[in-house]
Amino acid sequence: MEEKLSYRNTVRLFAGEKCFGPGVAQLLRHVQEFHSLRSAAKAQMTSSASQPVWAWTIVKSSERILGVQLLNTSVGGRSGGGAQLTEEAVLLLEAYTAFCADLHAAGDALFAQHFGYLEGRS
Amino acid sequence: MEEKLSYRNTVRLFAGEKCFGPGVAQLLRHVQEFHSLRSAAKAQMTSSASQPVWAWTIVKSSERILGVQLLNTSVGGRSGGGAQLTEEAVLLLEAYTAFCADLHAAGDALFAQHFGYLEGRS
Repeated sequence: MEEKLSYRNTVRLFAGEKCFGPGVAQLLRHVQEFHSLRSAAKAQMTSSASQPVWAWTIVKSSERILGVQLLNTSVGGRSGGGAQLTEEAVLLLEAYTAFCADLHAAGDALFAQHFGYLEGRS
Repeated sequence: MEEKLSYRNTVRLFAGEKCFGPGVAQLLRHVQEFHSLRSAAKAQMTSSASQPVWAWTIVKSSERILGVQLLNTSVGGRSGGGAQLTEEAVLLLEAYTAFCADLHAAGDALFAQHFGYLEGRS
């Protein structure tokens, strides 16, 4: 092994079906940044070129399974329309982000414990 | 939300590139059970019908990146050929399995902490 062993952890939330994961989390972060679902989806496609992101479908599916509204959208008007996260979406995104970060912090010690035996091998 | 919120973790190992994850781990477990890569791949395809499992490619890719041999294979002979895990593969699979289990155990408390605010909501 030429490069040091590391790990990545992907967290997906389920409520019967899968309802939240890294894709929709990133999309919501982009909506926070761009105040537009269209721009958020565009940014997402740039950052993960492997497949088109069906932003609206993803959000609607999460909303249906979670039973909460995630986005407030407005069409047209002076501001030209846009999207912003509902209070519920902000709370959920914060909980997901903090959970992933804490889990990774806990994981680092466990990883060293379980894979330490590989240290020093070429 | 009609069903209780839960989470699932997917752990992937990297040594520069991705070299180990749930797919190859499950494949190695099936080799331990069936003593054959062909039977292991067949079992894998039954348990995850979404795509064919390119068992040999997966194993060879892991071996190349990790720089260790994972399977001892024999062709023909009295036993009709077969496959078994190398000592390195057994150690790696045990470390991966234990790491995933410990990470999930650590995650349960963190999950309750971060998503507890959703309890009691309908």
